[in-house]
Amino acid sequence: MDNFTFYSPTFFAFGKDTENDAGKYVKRFGGSKILIHYGGGSVVRSGLLDRVKKSLDAAGIAYVELGGVKPNPRSGLVYEGIDLCRKEKVDFILAVGGGSTIDSSKAIAAGVVYDGDFWDFYSGKPIREALPIGTILTIAAAGSEGSPDSVITKEEGMFKRGASGNAIRPKFSILNPALTETLPAFQTAAGITDIMAHLHERYLTNTKDVEVTDRLIEALLLTMIAEGPKVIADPHNYEARANIMWAGMMAHNNSVGVGRSQDWNSHQIEHELSATYDCAHGAGLAVTMPAVFKYVMKHDVNRFAQLAVRVWGCQMDFDHPEITAMNGIKALQNFLHSIGMPSNFAELGAKKEDIPQMVQTLCHGNGRPGYIQGFVKLDENDCTRIYEMMI
Amino acid sequence: MDNFTFYSPTFFAFGKDTENDAGKYVKRFGGSKILIHYGGGSVVRSGLLDRVKKSLDAAGIAYVELGGVKPNPRSGLVYEGIDLCRKEKVDFILAVGGGSTIDSSKAIAAGVVYDGDFWDFYSGKPIREALPIGTILTIAAAGSEGSPDSVITKEEGMFKRGASGNAIRPKFSILNPALTETLPAFQTAAGITDIMAHLHERYLTNTKDVEVTDRLIEALLLTMIAEGPKVIADPHNYEARANIMWAGMMAHNNSVGVGRSQDWNSHQIEHELSATYDCAHGAGLAVTMPAVFKYVMKHDVNRFAQLAVRVWGCQMDFDHPEITAMNGIKALQNFLHSIGMPSNFAELGAKKEDIPQMVQTLCHGNGRPGYIQGFVKLDENDCTRIYEMMI
Repeated sequence: MDNFTFYSPTFFAFGKDTENDAGKYVKRFGGSKILIHYGGGSVVRSGLLDRVKKSLDAAGIAYVELGGVKPNPRSGLVYEGIDLCRKEKVDFILAVGGGSTIDSSKAIAAGVVYDGDFWDFYSGKPIREALPIGTILTIAAAGSEGSPDSVITKEEGMFKRGASGNAIRPKFSILNPALTETLPAFQTAAGITDIMAHLHERYLTNTKDVEVTDRLIEALLLTMIAEGPKVIADPHNYEARANIMWAGMMAHNNSVGVGRSQDWNSHQIEHELSATYDCAHGAGLAVTMPAVFKYVMKHDVNRFAQLAVRVWGCQMDFDHPEITAMNGIKALQNFLHSIGMPSNFAELGAKKEDIPQMVQTLCHGNGRPGYIQGFVKLDENDCTRIYEMMI
Repeated sequence: MDNFTFYSPTFFAFGKDTENDAGKYVKRFGGSKILIHYGGGSVVRSGLLDRVKKSLDAAGIAYVELGGVKPNPRSGLVYEGIDLCRKEKVDFILAVGGGSTIDSSKAIAAGVVYDGDFWDFYSGKPIREALPIGTILTIAAAGSEGSPDSVITKEEGMFKRGASGNAIRPKFSILNPALTETLPAFQTAAGITDIMAHLHERYLTNTKDVEVTDRLIEALLLTMIAEGPKVIADPHNYEARANIMWAGMMAHNNSVGVGRSQDWNSHQIEHELSATYDCAHGAGLAVTMPAVFKYVMKHDVNRFAQLAVRVWGCQMDFDHPEITAMNGIKALQNFLHSIGMPSNFAELGAKKEDIPQMVQTLCHGNGRPGYIQGFVKLDENDCTRIYEMMI
């Protein structure tokens, strides 16, 4: 196991009606004048925003609002949020929404206290300081509610890039599974896929003898396989949504990924798809992951075979472990298809003729060295072939 | 899933040589004059204490020392520590040792800032304030390095009782698996047993549909079953010790136990054994757990069958699930015996004639209501029969 540090100081309030304590938690974690940041109309229509404001009013918290976060959140709104926070002397940001809203809030939080362009953080500069933020989660997916990460798309060049730093870990996150019951089935399934992708990115490691994190990742994948189809069949299955919501946090706060090298190639390859077509990140991952895994499988057949046996219940073919490994990847693909996710470029709305441009941005854009490096190193040729496998 | 809050703000530094950063972390988390609290001579003989002092000196941290913590740590030394900290105006406590040293440090930390008798906290009063503490762990076992809990034995009456509160969660914990390589095999095995007990106490729940935490607990048990025998066979297997050390923390910081009722009857029944005979807590648990589980199995046969199938690889007997359930308990008993743990009263040094007194203290001592309540309610008669099963 590699040396590591782990620090996850977020306070989680989990369960029914917990959003009504938002004001109490903002106060506890030092907010007095806050920005409420959110996305489209659903948090307004559902009455969630009103309940949150009522709770803030009761706690004597002043607030300004900035809505309009879109999936694959953009830099434009981040700059707007930074200006607003400075003008209004905001001391705390409350994100009400999913990963996009939380990531946009994190970018604003880091940008407000930074003299330069916030995009520096998305070009490799670590985030060491930020306004405190809290979250009220409305979809189990990105894991941003418990992570030190944020992903933003820069309109100029359509670069989709990540930033990281313990300073942007939320001070508190309110997780009420009931808030996710009104999501369309497609969004729920995309969230399930994103969570499973976070687990696979950690599972594909070159570090040896990491049984504890292997087993923990497998446990969370088994949870998704058991609970995912239940919420697709019945969106009001609170218990299944609760299991998925905690799994989604655990999948990405890195307690199950410490001390081992990780992959993240699938995420990088997918980011070009959602940046180009503005598709749901989870949907893009559903198409990307099986292609990547088939392409890199031979790098460590036994790792994929272990995943197939322990998670997908495949029989181990001791004479031909590559058959077991491939059966596991096919089981993943079938599972994702069964919950309504796309399987190929056509279903995603992607086009073969865009592959060269995506490969160019992926391998060279924003200062990249001509390849991406995760579980294996993938150059332009590799990435081209992987995109072609998705057609 | 039940509503819950979860807050684990401890900073973990994990891996080789991390104890050399002790001074840096004490400084980061606000210590300027500290108490170094430790147990017997092993931390002195091994040179660990010298390395820690060197690191503190380099960081400009002043310190006083208090050694002498014993397994099943006593209230007498806690009072001494409280007096010393007040006299020396200590602002931070650094525990160098295992669960006993950390628990003693937590008791001192809570007592220093409290006007009354620290034992109030061990009689049910929640801990809301304490001096900050840090830990350097020397055995994977109690999980106290990442937990809000402490267990102390009061000499007067030999009551062994627990206290809890987020205020006594360590600010940082240094986890270097190499520091555990010099432990005697028996201590290592007792630690493994304690970790497995923490997992079983959480697994035995009356809350339905808690797949995510079921699976996470199973993952950690599977890790212990795979890695435990490796360190017994080769005490210098760093990788196995690393897996066990992270599993030990995860087993008890409660991320795998949230949102579900828990048991803790085995711990309470064992506490009378270690309070009476001063045996290793883990050794006591090795004798206690199988007896308790066999006694309560019929309360939820399917839960024990699930554990048997998923963790111990037992075949499910669909016509007679109680046979599967019992096979799982026997597999646990065999495993604990195989790593060198005792199986009965005689091997533990316990005596049949002490059972009435232990039952009396267990069910009535320190204000108890005449029974203990966990996965099932156990009255005096139940507890007597359970102790008798251990003979």
